[in-house]
Amino acid sequence: MKNFRSPQRPKKSSLVIGPQAVISAMQSGKALDRIYLDNLSKGALASQIRTVAAEHGVPVNYVPAAKLNSFNITGHEGCVAQIARVQYQNLQDVISFVIESGEVPLFLILDGITDIRNIGGIARTAYCTGVHAIIIPDKGVGALNEDAVMTSAGALEKIAVCRVNSLMKTVDDLHLNGIRVFASEMTAEKSIGECDLSIPAAIVMGSEDNGIYPALMKICDEKVKIPMANDFESLNVSVATGIILYEVMRQRG
Amino acid sequence: MKNFRSPQRPKKSSLVIGPQAVISAMQSGKALDRIYLDNLSKGALASQIRTVAAEHGVPVNYVPAAKLNSFNITGHEGCVAQIARVQYQNLQDVISFVIESGEVPLFLILDGITDIRNIGGIARTAYCTGVHAIIIPDKGVGALNEDAVMTSAGALEKIAVCRVNSLMKTVDDLHLNGIRVFASEMTAEKSIGECDLSIPAAIVMGSEDNGIYPALMKICDEKVKIPMANDFESLNVSVATGIILYEVMRQRG
Repeated sequence: MKNFRSPQRPKKSSLVIGPQAVISAMQSGKALDRIYLDNLSKGALASQIRTVAAEHGVPVNYVPAAKLNSFNITGHEGCVAQIARVQYQNLQDVISFVIESGEVPLFLILDGITDIRNIGGIARTAYCTGVHAIIIPDKGVGALNEDAVMTSAGALEKIAVCRVNSLMKTVDDLHLNGIRVFASEMTAEKSIGECDLSIPAAIVMGSEDNGIYPALMKICDEKVKIPMANDFESLNVSVATGIILYEVMRQRG
Repeated sequence: MKNFRSPQRPKKSSLVIGPQAVISAMQSGKALDRIYLDNLSKGALASQIRTVAAEHGVPVNYVPAAKLNSFNITGHEGCVAQIARVQYQNLQDVISFVIESGEVPLFLILDGITDIRNIGGIARTAYCTGVHAIIIPDKGVGALNEDAVMTSAGALEKIAVCRVNSLMKTVDDLHLNGIRVFASEMTAEKSIGECDLSIPAAIVMGSEDNGIYPALMKICDEKVKIPMANDFESLNVSVATGIILYEVMRQRG
């Protein structure tokens, strides 16, 4: 059985080692999950890494040297990057592609769902129900690694995943593209069956503990709930996501 | 973090120790999850335990003495019983109660889903969607202990659970009570949306690996599937259960 105690150390083969190699990897179009940069790094090279990383949308984590040494590799010179197991897509590219192909856009936004196994499980459901892309924030969510791909039963390698800097800005972008944003919220007045989910739509799911971040909730177009046979009860987020996406699929026929 | 490696040893307070105590517990109506009987036990007392256990529907596990000694208790004299964390109900009693109360019966049969955490998660969904009872076989499924109750977010203490000796006989009993039995099966021709689930119904869910046992499948009335956006894909059993039960709720209004 798996040991759930020790966080996995990334395999050497999944790393790009050293600042020059990391810059070259990004410039040659290699997908990186994130860059670990020694928080004492200064000078032109460190500044170039930040610039190129921003251009390519790769998050930079500033870490103590001990973190880099824990990877058990030599020659990192204060910089290591993790190669993405999942190929992240640009959201606007996906939106354009979906609209051009004549399909009705369906996106799934995960707010505060940080456990990568949870994201993997939800990705499996999303792929089965025809979601065009899963949108996750680039902060707070760990790298979508082997474990995540395994929990998703491979779906994370098939479905588009968009990693965005700000979910607030993402909702603005979706609005500009004519996509209505529905927030899943237990206390909503309307049930999913009472909403028109056949239009271009994005569904926001929050974490079980904290729900959707209030500022994000505010800019969503509509709150929706799943009807419950028993009050004060709630569904697991993965099951709730499945039910809402099924209702979308049902309405779209 | 929890250690997933070592199976939990039952707490002393959740055990009834010794053959006489076990017999008394059953006769006084105490709910027992199962009895562990030394497989070398012979004589009148062992035979009485078997008789009383059969009368009260408590499964008896015949185990080597080493298993009993592993509980780390003294004076067990070859017999220990685990007190039920979940109060099992008699299926016919539940059916009669539901019919008398004027509700449309809805049952959930779990075939080959043996992981108690999985059962806990499904119980949470079943409670939210108004299932009247979950039906599980008494063989192969471990005791529904603290872990199961925790995973169910307490639902296992609120929803009726019926533990039956034979799922085949259970389907016969459901039929005699006018309840139609639907088998969830990926390759079914009909989608859940095309079936009338507003009638008295029981839903059978199989394990992700093996599906529903063929002989059981044969005596079900109808096979149903969840529509999929992508072929050759499948949903997690917990999510699939949630979607089917939501569709039942939706049709019943």
